[in-house]
Amino acid sequence: MVALAFLPELWTEILIPVCAVVGIVFSLFQWFIVSRVRVSADQGASSSSGGANNGKNGYGDYLIEEEEGVNDQSVVAKCAEIQTAISEGATSFLFTEYRYVGVFMVIFAAIIFVFLGSVEGFSTENKPCTYDDTKTCKPALATAAFSTIAFILGAVTSVLSGFLGMKIATYANARTTLEARKGVGKAFIVAFRSGAVMGFLLAASGLLVLYITINVFKIYYGEDWEGLFEAITGYGLGGSSMALFGRVGGGIYTKAADVGADLVGKIERNIPEDDPRNPAVIADNVGDNVGDIAGMGSDLFGSYAEASCAALVVASISSFGINHDFTAMCYPLLISSMGILVCLITTLFATDFFEIKAVKEIEPALKNQLIISTVIMTVGIAIVSYVGLPSSFTIFNFGAQKVVKNWQLFLCVCVGLWAGLIIGFVTEYYTSNAYSPVQDVADSCRTGAATNVIFGLALGYKSVIIPIFAIAISIFVSFSFAAMYGVAVAALGMLSTIATGLAIDAYGPISDNAGGIAEMAGMSHRIRERTDALDAAGNTTAAIGKGFAIGSAALVSLALFGAFVSRAGVHTVDVLTPKVIIGLLVGAMLPYWFSAMTMKSVGSAALKMVEEVRRQFNTIPGLMEGTAKPDYATCVKISTDASIKEMIPPGCLVMLTPLIVGFFFGVETLSGVLAGSLVSGVQIAISASNTGGAWDNAKKYIEAGVSEHAKSLGPKGSEPHKAAVIGDTIGDPLKDTSGPSLNILIKLMAVESLVFAPFFATHGGILFKYL
Amino acid sequence: MVALAFLPELWTEILIPVCAVVGIVFSLFQWFIVSRVRVSADQGASSSSGGANNGKNGYGDYLIEEEEGVNDQSVVAKCAEIQTAISEGATSFLFTEYRYVGVFMVIFAAIIFVFLGSVEGFSTENKPCTYDDTKTCKPALATAAFSTIAFILGAVTSVLSGFLGMKIATYANARTTLEARKGVGKAFIVAFRSGAVMGFLLAASGLLVLYITINVFKIYYGEDWEGLFEAITGYGLGGSSMALFGRVGGGIYTKAADVGADLVGKIERNIPEDDPRNPAVIADNVGDNVGDIAGMGSDLFGSYAEASCAALVVASISSFGINHDFTAMCYPLLISSMGILVCLITTLFATDFFEIKAVKEIEPALKNQLIISTVIMTVGIAIVSYVGLPSSFTIFNFGAQKVVKNWQLFLCVCVGLWAGLIIGFVTEYYTSNAYSPVQDVADSCRTGAATNVIFGLALGYKSVIIPIFAIAISIFVSFSFAAMYGVAVAALGMLSTIATGLAIDAYGPISDNAGGIAEMAGMSHRIRERTDALDAAGNTTAAIGKGFAIGSAALVSLALFGAFVSRAGVHTVDVLTPKVIIGLLVGAMLPYWFSAMTMKSVGSAALKMVEEVRRQFNTIPGLMEGTAKPDYATCVKISTDASIKEMIPPGCLVMLTPLIVGFFFGVETLSGVLAGSLVSGVQIAISASNTGGAWDNAKKYIEAGVSEHAKSLGPKGSEPHKAAVIGDTIGDPLKDTSGPSLNILIKLMAVESLVFAPFFATHGGILFKYL
Repeated sequence: MVALAFLPELWTEILIPVCAVVGIVFSLFQWFIVSRVRVSADQGASSSSGGANNGKNGYGDYLIEEEEGVNDQSVVAKCAEIQTAISEGATSFLFTEYRYVGVFMVIFAAIIFVFLGSVEGFSTENKPCTYDDTKTCKPALATAAFSTIAFILGAVTSVLSGFLGMKIATYANARTTLEARKGVGKAFIVAFRSGAVMGFLLAASGLLVLYITINVFKIYYGEDWEGLFEAITGYGLGGSSMALFGRVGGGIYTKAADVGADLVGKIERNIPEDDPRNPAVIADNVGDNVGDIAGMGSDLFGSYAEASCAALVVASISSFGINHDFTAMCYPLLISSMGILVCLITTLFATDFFEIKAVKEIEPALKNQLIISTVIMTVGIAIVSYVGLPSSFTIFNFGAQKVVKNWQLFLCVCVGLWAGLIIGFVTEYYTSNAYSPVQDVADSCRTGAATNVIFGLALGYKSVIIPIFAIAISIFVSFSFAAMYGVAVAALGMLSTIATGLAIDAYGPISDNAGGIAEMAGMSHRIRERTDALDAAGNTTAAIGKGFAIGSAALVSLALFGAFVSRAGVHTVDVLTPKVIIGLLVGAMLPYWFSAMTMKSVGSAALKMVEEVRRQFNTIPGLMEGTAKPDYATCVKISTDASIKEMIPPGCLVMLTPLIVGFFFGVETLSGVLAGSLVSGVQIAISASNTGGAWDNAKKYIEAGVSEHAKSLGPKGSEPHKAAVIGDTIGDPLKDTSGPSLNILIKLMAVESLVFAPFFATHGGILFKYL
Repeated sequence: MVALAFLPELWTEILIPVCAVVGIVFSLFQWFIVSRVRVSADQGASSSSGGANNGKNGYGDYLIEEEEGVNDQSVVAKCAEIQTAISEGATSFLFTEYRYVGVFMVIFAAIIFVFLGSVEGFSTENKPCTYDDTKTCKPALATAAFSTIAFILGAVTSVLSGFLGMKIATYANARTTLEARKGVGKAFIVAFRSGAVMGFLLAASGLLVLYITINVFKIYYGEDWEGLFEAITGYGLGGSSMALFGRVGGGIYTKAADVGADLVGKIERNIPEDDPRNPAVIADNVGDNVGDIAGMGSDLFGSYAEASCAALVVASISSFGINHDFTAMCYPLLISSMGILVCLITTLFATDFFEIKAVKEIEPALKNQLIISTVIMTVGIAIVSYVGLPSSFTIFNFGAQKVVKNWQLFLCVCVGLWAGLIIGFVTEYYTSNAYSPVQDVADSCRTGAATNVIFGLALGYKSVIIPIFAIAISIFVSFSFAAMYGVAVAALGMLSTIATGLAIDAYGPISDNAGGIAEMAGMSHRIRERTDALDAAGNTTAAIGKGFAIGSAALVSLALFGAFVSRAGVHTVDVLTPKVIIGLLVGAMLPYWFSAMTMKSVGSAALKMVEEVRRQFNTIPGLMEGTAKPDYATCVKISTDASIKEMIPPGCLVMLTPLIVGFFFGVETLSGVLAGSLVSGVQIAISASNTGGAWDNAKKYIEAGVSEHAKSLGPKGSEPHKAAVIGDTIGDPLKDTSGPSLNILIKLMAVESLVFAPFFATHGGILFKYL
């Protein structure tokens, strides 16, 4: 008598889609609330307050807050115009990107089908299962076909989520600006709600599509869960390869536009940031959306899809799969379902239970979101682990089965969840200018840009220590308890509060854009101060989000690595063999190669932008005087084309390395490469992100001049400030392009290896075979 | 009938010491030639030419070269004075350092003795051997005592070599300046010969002491070669731990003085580099010696000692040791002996066979040294492999014995030797301003310091690709042929031309100092131009030397890692176990932690120097006008004290990590840590060194203004030049402190683990035992 999970299969089948739908409905509801802020000039801002007078976040209490120019129709019209330009620019980038994505998807889908189909020579016969040869499994050709379908589904889900996320972000930015006229609290809520739309939409649709895919595939696969969940891994690959376009392409776009706009505008022409005379200003604001919203979204969606697939594929060859315990099999999905409910409650704390009244409350409110969601989720995990798992079961552990208790799995998920929180707070400590590390970096600007850079680099290096220990402890606990399944669910634990994480993260660029719109629309200094306050908090949360993304990427790629090794039939990856050690060494080099490429890409793309901006300033009469309008669209186009073109070499490095290594050198060397790039990449990613974040906030610290110390370094234009600006510019590609792109490198290589594992196991390593 | 090496044992016993003595004699002869250039004012420069009229490098032909101020007594007196100041400063640093070294050695010797003695509870009984239990081996207590003695011998040899190297360097710098009056060729030869003194002295004395130690220990150990060569590993640890002081302490010293001198002198007071009014100028020149001569020397000596020990300890449990084939056992020493002879011939190409007549011949002459020594050494290795090895033998391979042919071992040594050459040339390509990478970095200075830094970092990242492939191929070939013994001899192959490598490397700082002395002595612009030309070539060779040092460090630490694993009785280091993977991850983090520490150290030490220099400028009347002399000694003392103090935290990190990890977490986790820090550290070390070198030479490229392109960026003081100076300042700690110090991190942790392997195997991992 096999012990099954407490929760009946039928309930599981109902609960998961219900939670997903709840998430989607909640997301749409938030969108609806945001949409009530009107940006069309003809109706007027005052009419936008109608109908919400009774709500706490409505406008009934506007008399107690300061209001500025609420009834100024021309400002609203201008905001609407700018928002439309940003939205159109973002859409144009996405549609251009999608053309390339389409071509890529067709080619790569063909590669998947052919490579996986060739494993058994395109035979359509059933075969004995790999892990249980008493049973019959579906042919490799079927797995090839279904993997290809899952790949396309993952990619399309990622693309859709990213697209919708960006739509809402570009829909919310002007609304945030307009609400800032009524006070910082109102603006905060609009920005945060819009972030929540993105977060919930992505988490819920990712879960729903995955769930439906499993159920549809099950109709064909029937009892062959081994094949079923092998095919499902394509979903992770699809999600993750879109993240390549989102993170790398978007990262290059945003920094090319930003650096290009700054180099000509701020330095050559001496006009302020976000000045509407700068031809690249719209491209810069578009960049915040494509890089930080669509890029971050696709990155985390990729992590989420990959972690789920890694957990499922290991579970399918563990007792869950062998006993056909569907509820236990769906444990990863149940965790995510619970996560949606927990994040829903958490969101209410920011939007309904409490109200922001002062600038200094913004950052704590965002941080509390993380703490609240983590605490509630801990209870949620306990419930899911109790009802969704048998009290004792076995997990596949590289050739053997390992007995695991449900409380052990609970601990695995928890350790990931809490490690995420720790990483978040450490990142905050090293990148927020409220603490000494950033203040020390700011102080080093006294002796010039060189010391600023040295101290900034040292800060980034130092900031990896605690996150690495946190990740190491998570790995040790989860690996010891439940092998690679434990690592996968630890990653899912870290990602279980993804909806809240994304909400906080998307809040940043929305506020940033809101500030830009305020500047461009010529709104008053006070409005700009409010949006700046929102933005400063957003900078820190962006760093936290990046820390989170990297931490989860590390766990996810280890889980994928474990799943790959299991599927490829490798039992040990011994460093004391030449094939593995050279893989390890070369793998550890790949993040450097990749970073060199992405940094160079930003440089080249920025140079093209510089040339265009210079051309416009030189050839359009009246541009500097503000009498003529610049040609924003050309700059948007240049950024778009350059970023797509420049992402090809790093993209090829990521996509081809596993194929080349696996095919020519075999699975042992590929294992080494994956492990090497993982342990090396995570360090560079963390240090690059934090160094960049610290430089950015050191500059902001000097500019804001809040403390005596900060005042002694400022004001804007002083020598220390100039040194800080240099650091900030260097940090831009580090923190927004090369650093976060490394997540993609380590995850995508791992998931690609996993999908192609049967092919490499059969046909790989031809170089050693014939040598 | 066991096949033994062709060369009889007696010949081996004679040949090795003879080669070592030849090296020492050759070194003393070079010193004698250099000493014939007189720097005492009372005798006059003209008398210095006496007695060498007939030699090609004598002064008989001085009429055909330009001469300036050869008979100016006051210049000679001034040079002598400055030289004395530098020499005294260097000596004072070394003696201060030695006090701390002394304390460290006593404490660490005690730790070695107690830890190793405790392995068998301080028993004095003989015991069955670990690898062949039919034989009787000496007690662990004896190994503890002899390891301690070997440790002290290694440390003392390293200290003595470093001390003598620095003596000759500070003895040669003024002589090079004075010879520069007679032409660039003369100056080159003096600088090069002095470098050769250092190179040969170090290579030969290292070999001789090791050889004598083995023979003396053999008297006690008799037939127990297992114990004998286990004790010998202490020699490597001794050499390497002195390298910690040399590289890290010296690295902090040199950059604290350099950055401190520049920040006040060049930037605040606007006086040129090496201006005698700058109080830190002597400290800066002392720094070149303690950092680049003593530091580099101790680093390479450490590598050499460690590679030999790693090879010997693996050989002792292979057929060489089991069959007591002394000649084959001494194969590593025979390679080094041959290396001394090959380098001796190579040196003659630079000093006697050809003569430098023009500036543009300097760099090719130095590069030819590398090529010539590599080509001749290839033949040398073939001879040694033929006569010094049986045609077939077995090598210990983690629990099994592996059959190896002598030609395979020949290939192992060769692949290391040639990989070193490739790494050298790739480094040159990325750091010399004759090629496009540095020129591109210089070009990026047009758009400011930020783009310069971004391009420089990208260059450094990119420059790791080929060296890593070269190292990976060496590892693959040598590991596949002869397991860890192959890797160790590959490292020895790379280090076999160490005498030439060090000669080229030491040439750099000597020329740099010569330029400084010319400036301080107020010699003419033409002299300064000549020393600058010597120095520019020296910059590139310094980068090559660093690439070489890192490449060999990578191979050496892998060999030590293999030896450690063998001694600790570990048969697999499986990445798919939680203990190993967390070790790998944390190990990969250590280089970042260490770099953060060393960069911070340079910053803090430089700050102290800045304060002192400012104080002197403010309080000594007439200093800026040149009527009063600054207080050089205080600056030297500040650099000395600060560097010693600041090296304690990074030093502790290196020394304590293996002890803590091994004791608490056991040998598997320690294996992971070693592998992780190796694969991650080598990348950062290469990229940091090359980035720094590229920035330095980009600045020099703009300053020299040789091409049209360079002229468009200059002259000195232009905006691009200012941006280049910022890059150069950032690069200083990267290329001279944190980058090269990583060699020590990866090697020292490995050799320490090796020495303590029996202790860890017996008492290690207590955390897991009691958990």
